[in-house]
Amino acid sequence: MILNEFLQAAAEVVGVENLLLGTDTVGFDVDWRGRYQGKALCVARPGSTQEVSELMALCMRHGVEVVPQGGNTGLCGAATPSADGNQMVVWLGRMNNVRAFSEIDGSITLDAGCVLETVQNLVAEQGYFFPMSLGAEGSCQIGGNIATNAGGTAVLRYGPMRDLVLGLEVVLPDGTVHDWLTPLRKNNTGYDLKQLFMGAEGTLGIITAATLKVFPAPKVRELAMVTLHSVGQALTLLHRVRRSLGERLLSCEIINWAQVALVLKHAQGAHWPFAEPSPWCLLIEVTETLEGYDLRGALETELEKALEAELITDAVVATSQAQQNSLWQLRHSVSEANKLEGYGVTHDTAVPLSQQGVFATEVEQRLMQAYPQGQVLMVGHIGDGNIHVIHMFQRDQHSAEQLASATRGVHQLVDDVTLSLGGTVSAEHGIGQTNKARLQASRSPQDLALMKAIKGVIDPDRRMNPGKVFD
Amino acid sequence: MILNEFLQAAAEVVGVENLLLGTDTVGFDVDWRGRYQGKALCVARPGSTQEVSELMALCMRHGVEVVPQGGNTGLCGAATPSADGNQMVVWLGRMNNVRAFSEIDGSITLDAGCVLETVQNLVAEQGYFFPMSLGAEGSCQIGGNIATNAGGTAVLRYGPMRDLVLGLEVVLPDGTVHDWLTPLRKNNTGYDLKQLFMGAEGTLGIITAATLKVFPAPKVRELAMVTLHSVGQALTLLHRVRRSLGERLLSCEIINWAQVALVLKHAQGAHWPFAEPSPWCLLIEVTETLEGYDLRGALETELEKALEAELITDAVVATSQAQQNSLWQLRHSVSEANKLEGYGVTHDTAVPLSQQGVFATEVEQRLMQAYPQGQVLMVGHIGDGNIHVIHMFQRDQHSAEQLASATRGVHQLVDDVTLSLGGTVSAEHGIGQTNKARLQASRSPQDLALMKAIKGVIDPDRRMNPGKVFD
Repeated sequence: MILNEFLQAAAEVVGVENLLLGTDTVGFDVDWRGRYQGKALCVARPGSTQEVSELMALCMRHGVEVVPQGGNTGLCGAATPSADGNQMVVWLGRMNNVRAFSEIDGSITLDAGCVLETVQNLVAEQGYFFPMSLGAEGSCQIGGNIATNAGGTAVLRYGPMRDLVLGLEVVLPDGTVHDWLTPLRKNNTGYDLKQLFMGAEGTLGIITAATLKVFPAPKVRELAMVTLHSVGQALTLLHRVRRSLGERLLSCEIINWAQVALVLKHAQGAHWPFAEPSPWCLLIEVTETLEGYDLRGALETELEKALEAELITDAVVATSQAQQNSLWQLRHSVSEANKLEGYGVTHDTAVPLSQQGVFATEVEQRLMQAYPQGQVLMVGHIGDGNIHVIHMFQRDQHSAEQLASATRGVHQLVDDVTLSLGGTVSAEHGIGQTNKARLQASRSPQDLALMKAIKGVIDPDRRMNPGKVFD
Repeated sequence: MILNEFLQAAAEVVGVENLLLGTDTVGFDVDWRGRYQGKALCVARPGSTQEVSELMALCMRHGVEVVPQGGNTGLCGAATPSADGNQMVVWLGRMNNVRAFSEIDGSITLDAGCVLETVQNLVAEQGYFFPMSLGAEGSCQIGGNIATNAGGTAVLRYGPMRDLVLGLEVVLPDGTVHDWLTPLRKNNTGYDLKQLFMGAEGTLGIITAATLKVFPAPKVRELAMVTLHSVGQALTLLHRVRRSLGERLLSCEIINWAQVALVLKHAQGAHWPFAEPSPWCLLIEVTETLEGYDLRGALETELEKALEAELITDAVVATSQAQQNSLWQLRHSVSEANKLEGYGVTHDTAVPLSQQGVFATEVEQRLMQAYPQGQVLMVGHIGDGNIHVIHMFQRDQHSAEQLASATRGVHQLVDDVTLSLGGTVSAEHGIGQTNKARLQASRSPQDLALMKAIKGVIDPDRRMNPGKVFD
């Protein structure tokens, strides 16, 4: 069972039952979408920061490369080992304790392996609110959320994961533990080193714990869906709602009809609440902390004004939790529906908010001209400028070569429009393996050189998650 | 006039009228509090990013050290040149153009030399709100605010300067320009390099421009002052108000009676709105974006509940802008009043919110025991855990040596309490020259080594603001 000195030593650190070998690594060798198939040398499942530190020191001595893995729900292959069988996966899932919760500090300190949904629920039980929310919340882990600077549906109001982190504990490739865990709201003693590790996708070290902000729980949440003709109208509406309802606005998600239709086709129980289809629809969620405040009335007033101004064509405000769930289902079922439908070429672009109308029109026109056999789906976070474009092909109508070629062409087309509008090719999913070439194309050579120089300082042997972000 | 080849070349870059020499540098040689007296080799006043870049390249060729300076209102001597006459001050004040403002993007892009108050006003004229607010806002510059990650009175709601920055333009010590200006809300393409320059106090490069977030303007602002017995009660009140009024809460500032008394003594027109003195008072400012919402009523309801619960002893809610100004005067006149009163040993500590009661009690007791000839003043941002302790001595009762010795002793005492409670010795003012020894004492050797390693990558010749942050 124990193959060599390194594996024996690793097993001594984490316990033999927590060092997986051979076929036991299968579940850790492939990414969630099944696009990257690797093979781990072994999977270590440390139970403490100390064990992570010992593992890292051991890997340094033996020159072993390390791939940190959390829920393995990332979409860019950042947590998948290479196929050469030389990399150790460090899976954080056993480290899932809450270390501290403080109402007055407005903070929770926890191990990196805690599952996001568990954290949301724990915080809610205390009467507070942790706003990070995304499709994979039932299995993604806090450490992965931080390492990828996750986005989701509440960025509009609360910012990405980076903005929710007060403190961090990281282990460097040589085993050094940096304990920056703190509920402090302000600290200007030197460089804010933790910022480097957020969004670095495990290429600089392993995040082992974090102190996160929690917020007063909303007393009430209201949800509306509206139909409208264009992204431009959606932007105007968003702008108006924001100016009047202010920080009550939590989420604003846009979906085009092609995408709604696929959800209605594939998601069981999905229901379109209007009599007619609509080119676009918008989900608007608002919250309020004040007891007894008529939030629904305030939202309805805004929507009535928008109807009068002919900004929207119809609106429905959910009057029960069940109705809210039903409306959200149209949004949350997108990934599953698309998986069932066919082969989707997906994008994670953001453009400046003001450019989203041009972006949507331009991309749709160009895609339908260049790849008329596909279907243009759009869904995303309009308040963040982050519209995901998915060009959907039927698998049975195209060869693998055709699909591979189309994927490259579609990416190129969407990226060209994105970059011409001052946008980014990776708004919230990161780089991982998927977007390495696009990173090269979208950042300046001097930016890339500076990133690599910083990487060289922290990981001189380039053993942390090699082959991810850059080569 | 032109002393040598370097100065001649520098004058060619910025124009001879913008290269100050000899006695013309006097205003740039000393810090705002007059605690650090330096002497610049010259002061360059570039008019564009291109000129900054050329200056930096020129300094590299000649091995000249560079001190970036904005409004020169920092409190830690970070913008003051050394006394050896070898450092060039680069003053950003001529670069004060707004490059772009976009309502829909919710952003403003501007040169680093724009004065904060000018920016606040410009944004307000457009119907928006830029929340950064601090005592020096009439002269401090945006570049300095970013380089020091400034705090102020709205951190509670909007975070420090770091949280308000979407994009940055920086010039490295070799003249390389990194243009990271963008209104994008999300971007996960590689490491977020701009984070490094925020709070680095000019030790890594010069910030030449920024894209900042702007927010919908509040339709109404209400201000209350309440009196109470203890910091603990203030924390409970803050917590209650936050849970009910949520993100309406903009500021929550605490002042002890000794500090109020000094303001009443020195600040013309300062007025205490209550019949009796009180050990502590709290300023609470709330805002609301919704037209016609009874914000004053909501605030009064909260305060009535607090009175009933005997959490506060009295309260006044301003009913006019003049009354609001009068209440704010008690807070805003603190620095001036203390300057007039005597020799204050100041601190910029933050502790976890929950530890502020212990902190205040402990510090006051220990200070009055060790230095009974002084007076303990406290004022600060209780929502950020950031209470400034000032131990005030009368200048005419102590020799310079006694004051110097007392300064060291008082710092040591306050720092000990701060660090024992998990706090920081520099919450919002930074390190500069003042806090270098305290940085060493409060960060781990491995943290300091990592900071220096990163500094070494970006500024290998150590010419950027030498003698600041660390030696």
